[in-house]
Amino acid sequence: MRGRTDLAVEMKEDIQSDEPIKGVHVMTKNNGDTDIKEVRIVVEDEDGAMRLGKPIGTYITLESEHLREHDEGFHQPMMEVLCKHLKEFIGMKRKIMVAGLGNREVTPDALGPYVIDNLYVTRHLLKEGIISQSIEVSAIAPGVMAQTGMESSVILKALVKEIRPDLLIVIDALAARESDRLNKTIQLADTGITPGSGVGNHRNAINKESIGIPVLAIGVPTVIAVPTIVNDAMDVMVSALGKQATKNVLKKFNEEERYQLACEMVTPYLENMFVTPKDIDEAVKRISYTISEAINQATQA
Amino acid sequence: MRGRTDLAVEMKEDIQSDEPIKGVHVMTKNNGDTDIKEVRIVVEDEDGAMRLGKPIGTYITLESEHLREHDEGFHQPMMEVLCKHLKEFIGMKRKIMVAGLGNREVTPDALGPYVIDNLYVTRHLLKEGIISQSIEVSAIAPGVMAQTGMESSVILKALVKEIRPDLLIVIDALAARESDRLNKTIQLADTGITPGSGVGNHRNAINKESIGIPVLAIGVPTVIAVPTIVNDAMDVMVSALGKQATKNVLKKFNEEERYQLACEMVTPYLENMFVTPKDIDEAVKRISYTISEAINQATQA
Amino acid sequence: MRGRTDLAVEMKEDIQSDEPIKGVHVMTKNNGDTDIKEVRIVVEDEDGAMRLGKPIGTYITLESEHLREHDEGFHQPMMEVLCKHLKEFIGMKRKIMVAGLGNREVTPDALGPYVIDNLYVTRHLLKEGIISQSIEVSAIAPGVMAQTGMESSVILKALVKEIRPDLLIVIDALAARESDRLNKTIQLADTGITPGSGVGNHRNAINKESIGIPVLAIGVPTVIAVPTIVNDAMDVMVSALGKQATKNVLKKFNEEERYQLACEMVTPYLENMFVTPKDIDEAVKRISYTISEAINQATQA
Amino acid sequence: MRGRTDLAVEMKEDIQSDEPIKGVHVMTKNNGDTDIKEVRIVVEDEDGAMRLGKPIGTYITLESEHLREHDEGFHQPMMEVLCKHLKEFIGMKRKIMVAGLGNREVTPDALGPYVIDNLYVTRHLLKEGIISQSIEVSAIAPGVMAQTGMESSVILKALVKEIRPDLLIVIDALAARESDRLNKTIQLADTGITPGSGVGNHRNAINKESIGIPVLAIGVPTVIAVPTIVNDAMDVMVSALGKQATKNVLKKFNEEERYQLACEMVTPYLENMFVTPKDIDEAVKRISYTISEAINQATQA
Repeated sequence: MRGRTDLAVEMKEDIQSDEPIKGVHVMTKNNGDTDIKEVRIVVEDEDGAMRLGKPIGTYITLESEHLREHDEGFHQPMMEVLCKHLKEFIGMKRKIMVAGLGNREVTPDALGPYVIDNLYVTRHLLKEGIISQSIEVSAIAPGVMAQTGMESSVILKALVKEIRPDLLIVIDALAARESDRLNKTIQLADTGITPGSGVGNHRNAINKESIGIPVLAIGVPTVIAVPTIVNDAMDVMVSALGKQATKNVLKKFNEEERYQLACEMVTPYLENMFVTPKDIDEAVKRISYTISEAINQATQA
Repeated sequence: MRGRTDLAVEMKEDIQSDEPIKGVHVMTKNNGDTDIKEVRIVVEDEDGAMRLGKPIGTYITLESEHLREHDEGFHQPMMEVLCKHLKEFIGMKRKIMVAGLGNREVTPDALGPYVIDNLYVTRHLLKEGIISQSIEVSAIAPGVMAQTGMESSVILKALVKEIRPDLLIVIDALAARESDRLNKTIQLADTGITPGSGVGNHRNAINKESIGIPVLAIGVPTVIAVPTIVNDAMDVMVSALGKQATKNVLKKFNEEERYQLACEMVTPYLENMFVTPKDIDEAVKRISYTISEAINQATQA
Repeated sequence: MRGRTDLAVEMKEDIQSDEPIKGVHVMTKNNGDTDIKEVRIVVEDEDGAMRLGKPIGTYITLESEHLREHDEGFHQPMMEVLCKHLKEFIGMKRKIMVAGLGNREVTPDALGPYVIDNLYVTRHLLKEGIISQSIEVSAIAPGVMAQTGMESSVILKALVKEIRPDLLIVIDALAARESDRLNKTIQLADTGITPGSGVGNHRNAINKESIGIPVLAIGVPTVIAVPTIVNDAMDVMVSALGKQATKNVLKKFNEEERYQLACEMVTPYLENMFVTPKDIDEAVKRISYTISEAINQATQA
Repeated sequence: MRGRTDLAVEMKEDIQSDEPIKGVHVMTKNNGDTDIKEVRIVVEDEDGAMRLGKPIGTYITLESEHLREHDEGFHQPMMEVLCKHLKEFIGMKRKIMVAGLGNREVTPDALGPYVIDNLYVTRHLLKEGIISQSIEVSAIAPGVMAQTGMESSVILKALVKEIRPDLLIVIDALAARESDRLNKTIQLADTGITPGSGVGNHRNAINKESIGIPVLAIGVPTVIAVPTIVNDAMDVMVSALGKQATKNVLKKFNEEERYQLACEMVTPYLENMFVTPKDIDEAVKRISYTISEAINQATQA
């Protein structure tokens, strides 16, 4: 493992092999005349899940240089591609709850709450007969545990039990490994959110198993974990020091040990930190808008 | 009725009589050497509830000129009096959920969410063993129906069912009738929140009956309803026009009919409006801080 | 005068006459196949200024039912019409400063600061050679006097002296008289902003005279003053009371006296209040976005 | 140099010598029975400035573990010590402008704007005769260049020219080198703010030379620069690799070259990133409040 990432495409890159991975199916395509690159990774069985380190399911990554840019015009194509995929996931479902995870007060973590701010919510309008002919949309920005004292999974489970939607869409800010992926990638996953390695049973997972209905996760990488940065630096340093100097030493460390070393290098206080771009405010505002508009279009008649 | 109000003290003022009201007990006191005036209204039975237009229960109103002022120093006495009352309500209860109702994006309605922002939440710290020896505090700012598509009562009922606190404290911005009461009054009510006239059964009530556990409501009047303003203006106008001119006309209207008239005078669009002071941002920020500090102190060992 | 308004179209309505007003030229047109109604009022001389109660200059009002609606799609036509007018005002000017007046913390007054949030600012990019070929745009949200201790006019005068733009665009939330105009009207005025009656010399004016360069004001009515509401209610009441009852009394009051009466009816505290719709958060967010996008398009090469 | 820092105490630590530094005077004391450690560094002449890498002037660092904690009670002692120092700096000055630098939308950079939010501003109240007997306080949160297109120094110079205060206090978030200093240190400097190495002439400096009046800077380290983290990791790695392996290689790099290497290791995109704690929202809110209260108390009669 080369540092924590929430992106299936980055997990895939770890497996340095040109051979196809058993149980993992990868397809790449470009979207017509847009610059949007689409990677679809399907984890087909437990074998594939073990190999990739991600639960069984489908992961779609949409990537566009333009997503990072100011011009709202560039966001239109991404919105349309995202909307198309959402419609596919939604299918015949008629009651959707959208949950914007994260902390509104910490800029790179505010993506989820910002999406909720721009959502066109219809549940109450349908119930009151003000509109008809629409998918029922309810929404919540539950806050983070430091604000609520409750795991998001517990809050969402309680609400789903009461409201009984047939699809839960969760929006969350993600961590990436490559700084170059920040704020220009959107990942869709029908596996929901599984904290940690993604394999095994987790108390705080937000997925079909824990919530009881299909969960679609939409995520955008907005931060890098500190150990990841340090790990990258080590690689460069090893090159800088020269093969001569390090050849005996390097034998001592395999990839996992080196990441462990990176973690040890950062003090406990540093582990509770994150790395994010200086223009994160602009990026989060724009991308959250793209996502909420895509959901609005996908759920309106 | 002389215009919508959420304050028991203003309901009481409607009953223009020096005689004691059957089933309603009123006590007034000043708090030591502070300027805080305290009115305790106890609605003892259904008879009293009918007369006052408020459900059976205890309503405590704390009022201080200083609450409207900038100097944080003046907030200390109010915080202490509020804390004392909270401790009384809390008694031996050990698990508290605090809900900050209202819309964070509309200044006079942001009181509830702002209180949550400054709360010291402990549920997760107790569960993880990071602290011991504290009342368990969880918190939520559920948002308003236009943002979530769900009634706050439904969200809170679901969370209470899951988390099982033994007291729910709801914070909400209120409407007053007298502009002079805005931002200097805090009302505590062990009846929770009962929209509408307060008598009868209500789908959206947040009280012991609907939620299943005791509900303490903390409210601060931050707005006046538009019909209230118009109604007040009518009174002044009637005087201005002179008894001569209106004496025959006035016979036609009793108090309730006159309020009805005030409502008719304001177009449907105006009914969806509110009146609030220009310095509402400062007021809401300060009072929300006073309330959250009082809760913090009342819940710490 | 029938209650305070910042809209030239409402001032015009006061003059109840079908005859053309000397010195005031009014043109109305519809914009192609959109629903946008456009009223252009030109105050040609001091005579017209006296009659209308607005300084000499051009006032363009754009009005659209759709501006109040959720669907972003409906904002596109308004954005384009606004952009067209902006380009006309800008003409050959190459250095523009945009000032977002108002208080970010009070929802209906946050229009100006929100416009600045979404603006594409270029002054620093041009100076650093990162871009070329664009109009130079600088921007400021100066805050209100209660936050800064300084009049906005003083702050802007100081900045204009230093930065030397050749056009100042000021964005501000306005007061209207008709609740029906809130959040669906945009007014452009090449007279800048002149607090009060608009006639005479004013210390706090933000106009060519005080700032030294042309000032274009873009305003949206988001609030109604409390005396206006009361005044309207009086009209309805007079009707309700019947001609019989009030005919002798009414003789005592002309229009101005009646507005004076309305002001007296509201206590001093009420005068410092405003009336605004409950969904003001959504409205301000959407319209500010429409305005900032129009400025962005009008200033890009 | 061991990585970018804005703190004089960290610059001092670079000079690994027990001998006194010529031209730099250092005094350390504890504040009575509080836990507040105070370090006063006086750079006496150009010689000292060269050695320390900071302009001639006085730097006071206040450090307290408690500043990072939730309990508002712990902030009272820091507020008082800060207030005492502010009064000393203010002396007989009677007109103060406070500038909250930074970007309100990026959490660790919002310290300056948040301080302005809680300030008690008096300039307009004194001018209008509402209060007398107070120091004149004006305030501005100018925003960052990406929002305004203007350097903060240019905006402040223009305002000082117009308003003519006799002291400018600038509040800004700083970068530290040690993660352990984040959010528990307050630095006061009578040198103002000098971007870059602090020696020489700088276009964007905000100091007596550029602004024309004394400038007091109050700063709190809230972020670490990415190269600093990498540099620290290199140190640990060199130890981990063992002296044997690196002794020949290390000869090639002196301290400055190693920092250069750290910068090269991080891609250009990474250089535009920062590292900050996950609980930065709480920390910035609390410390900004401590600072604004200290200014409020120091400027009231």
